[in-house]
Amino acid sequence: MKTECPVITLLTDFGLADHYVGAMKGFILGICPNAQLIDISHEITPYAIAEAAYTLSQAWTCFPPGTVHLVVVDPGVGTARRPIIVGAAGHHFVAPDNGVLTMVYDAVPDHEAREITASRFFGRPVSRTFHGRDIFAPVAAHLASGLAPSEFGAWIGDPLRLGFAKPTRTGLRTWAATILKVDRFGNLITNLDSEGWQRLANERFEMKVGTCLVTRMASNYGEMEPGDPFVIMGSAGFLEVSLNQGSAAKATGVRSGDTVEVRLL
Amino acid sequence: MKTECPVITLLTDFGLADHYVGAMKGFILGICPNAQLIDISHEITPYAIAEAAYTLSQAWTCFPPGTVHLVVVDPGVGTARRPIIVGAAGHHFVAPDNGVLTMVYDAVPDHEAREITASRFFGRPVSRTFHGRDIFAPVAAHLASGLAPSEFGAWIGDPLRLGFAKPTRTGLRTWAATILKVDRFGNLITNLDSEGWQRLANERFEMKVGTCLVTRMASNYGEMEPGDPFVIMGSAGFLEVSLNQGSAAKATGVRSGDTVEVRLL
Amino acid sequence: MKTECPVITLLTDFGLADHYVGAMKGFILGICPNAQLIDISHEITPYAIAEAAYTLSQAWTCFPPGTVHLVVVDPGVGTARRPIIVGAAGHHFVAPDNGVLTMVYDAVPDHEAREITASRFFGRPVSRTFHGRDIFAPVAAHLASGLAPSEFGAWIGDPLRLGFAKPTRTGLRTWAATILKVDRFGNLITNLDSEGWQRLANERFEMKVGTCLVTRMASNYGEMEPGDPFVIMGSAGFLEVSLNQGSAAKATGVRSGDTVEVRLL
Repeated sequence: MKTECPVITLLTDFGLADHYVGAMKGFILGICPNAQLIDISHEITPYAIAEAAYTLSQAWTCFPPGTVHLVVVDPGVGTARRPIIVGAAGHHFVAPDNGVLTMVYDAVPDHEAREITASRFFGRPVSRTFHGRDIFAPVAAHLASGLAPSEFGAWIGDPLRLGFAKPTRTGLRTWAATILKVDRFGNLITNLDSEGWQRLANERFEMKVGTCLVTRMASNYGEMEPGDPFVIMGSAGFLEVSLNQGSAAKATGVRSGDTVEVRLL
Repeated sequence: MKTECPVITLLTDFGLADHYVGAMKGFILGICPNAQLIDISHEITPYAIAEAAYTLSQAWTCFPPGTVHLVVVDPGVGTARRPIIVGAAGHHFVAPDNGVLTMVYDAVPDHEAREITASRFFGRPVSRTFHGRDIFAPVAAHLASGLAPSEFGAWIGDPLRLGFAKPTRTGLRTWAATILKVDRFGNLITNLDSEGWQRLANERFEMKVGTCLVTRMASNYGEMEPGDPFVIMGSAGFLEVSLNQGSAAKATGVRSGDTVEVRLL
Repeated sequence: MKTECPVITLLTDFGLADHYVGAMKGFILGICPNAQLIDISHEITPYAIAEAAYTLSQAWTCFPPGTVHLVVVDPGVGTARRPIIVGAAGHHFVAPDNGVLTMVYDAVPDHEAREITASRFFGRPVSRTFHGRDIFAPVAAHLASGLAPSEFGAWIGDPLRLGFAKPTRTGLRTWAATILKVDRFGNLITNLDSEGWQRLANERFEMKVGTCLVTRMASNYGEMEPGDPFVIMGSAGFLEVSLNQGSAAKATGVRSGDTVEVRLL
């Protein structure tokens, strides 16, 4: 699916202060001059593969088919971990094979993964520490220019997957859930699927969130008093714990990865 | 005014770490593939409508007519606050009706505001917490693609305005002014209009700025000794209190919203 | 070298919170509507010319010939320091003449520098504090649109150069080197040229780096134990002191500009 201005998204833990992101973009434009380069985020916590996997899962589905997603959170750079191309639902993903694409595999079971071995597409020389510039960026640019994934290497059946916590039932009317992410506003994004947990809108419940006991579900932020945390169906498809014009993370002391308890009364 | 690569600017309080900005851009490119997406800022203090209004006022006039400005600082998301399109001086603005466009209304008295009601242009489903993605971004993209504002909803005459502090005369030769903004360099941008206050270049004056008494006006930063705050005609059209290669904010202890006193001697 | 979508890169110390970068981009797009605007970094430490020079040196060579690089780290704005255009290896650089292009001059001895004097290309009025918007951005946009550098001013032979520290020999088998840069990951980039120092891979050595004595050279991050700093050939062409999944800067207490000692055993 070749377009006039193919879209390439970038998601890394490189930050925005150093030259790393600019270097990747420069090489991409040398290969694919009309690429539309869109940053998803470069502020992933360094080496945090699971955080990148979650952020990617929320962003890639918003882009049109034909988009190439370049994902470089790569603590294993220079080791034997494989660089891969994954095709899923008309999108392409270029990333290290370290599990950062796990949520793509889960969302699109009939994805196709290939190991990138065609070194003729790499920058020269390939450094030991910056495969984002030397391998992933040029491959993404050639893909966006219209080359078929099969040009870059052979099919593989076993890309690495990370385990992501699922909510677990801990009693007759109690569950343990996990905080997937804390966002800029201090919203706590749980792994409780909004659709499956719609009942909280009509039942009495208690959610133990750090130092707070949350007992109310809101339809929007504005209807709640500032200062009192509540549960809301978030935009990511999960229940979130939020505060009107304040940070639920600060109010509750809870962080990414922490457990929260839900009890139906 | 349809162009080959229509420009859409983005101004939000979403930060750059989460997927929120990327999600909006993805939907825009699905609707308007050749859009030029330009970030004004995503580092507005969360919920700070007045700060966003000031930042927008300094940026939008730099862009060519035909630009669509997408402004999402939206603490009332999901409540009854209206989404609006405003046309002014050949530019379009897409924003919540919470006063964030006040300085556009002041600059262009014959602007035209419409409430966005044509839900056929919205993403589906519309979430309760992320209208940037579900309403504002797709509307901005359709506008940039060439749709007329009248397609999105009816004219309204009463968009919300914020009050912005004006300097007030407090004595025969004294005035109280307000700090509109502290920038990255620690420059204190006052609400004293440079043109009206040119006299300070030729008269003796004292400006009481936090812990400091400022008595000199500079033509440029470099002519002043490092360490001594001075007044300068800033690039925003207002007097600023600055320091050569240092932060006037740190030196004076003054913040956005604080009052400073001017006395002509 | 005029292309359909000419590339303009931006490197400043303006940060991303204020309107400054957006204002420059707006004026550029008014002059050169199809420009591809690529951020190298806006997080250069305020006024840090040497830091910008290093960051530029690592980024510009990644871009295709014909790229215009707009570099605005300009503590002398409004003083007599000259605005210049430099042509080198098919690239153009637009910057204040304060040494920020020193590493370009070193890399491309047959560069050509011109003073920008053609004020017909400037924004009006030219402010005293924001030549990025009023001089450098419009000149970069006109260059990217295809105007010849000679349109902007006459050749100059003496652009300002900064001195950058070179490693110095301090004994029969000892050298003093300097840390050029600490990156987001805490890697310490030395000024020891990787090619000239390949011998460290085969010889016993000690590098005194702050509170640590580093004695090993790694081929990649992953082969080393977390917690122990090591030397590695970095992607910038210099030796770096790094830590597997950790910050060498934190582990050693060393900062940009500090000296490290190398001893061959």
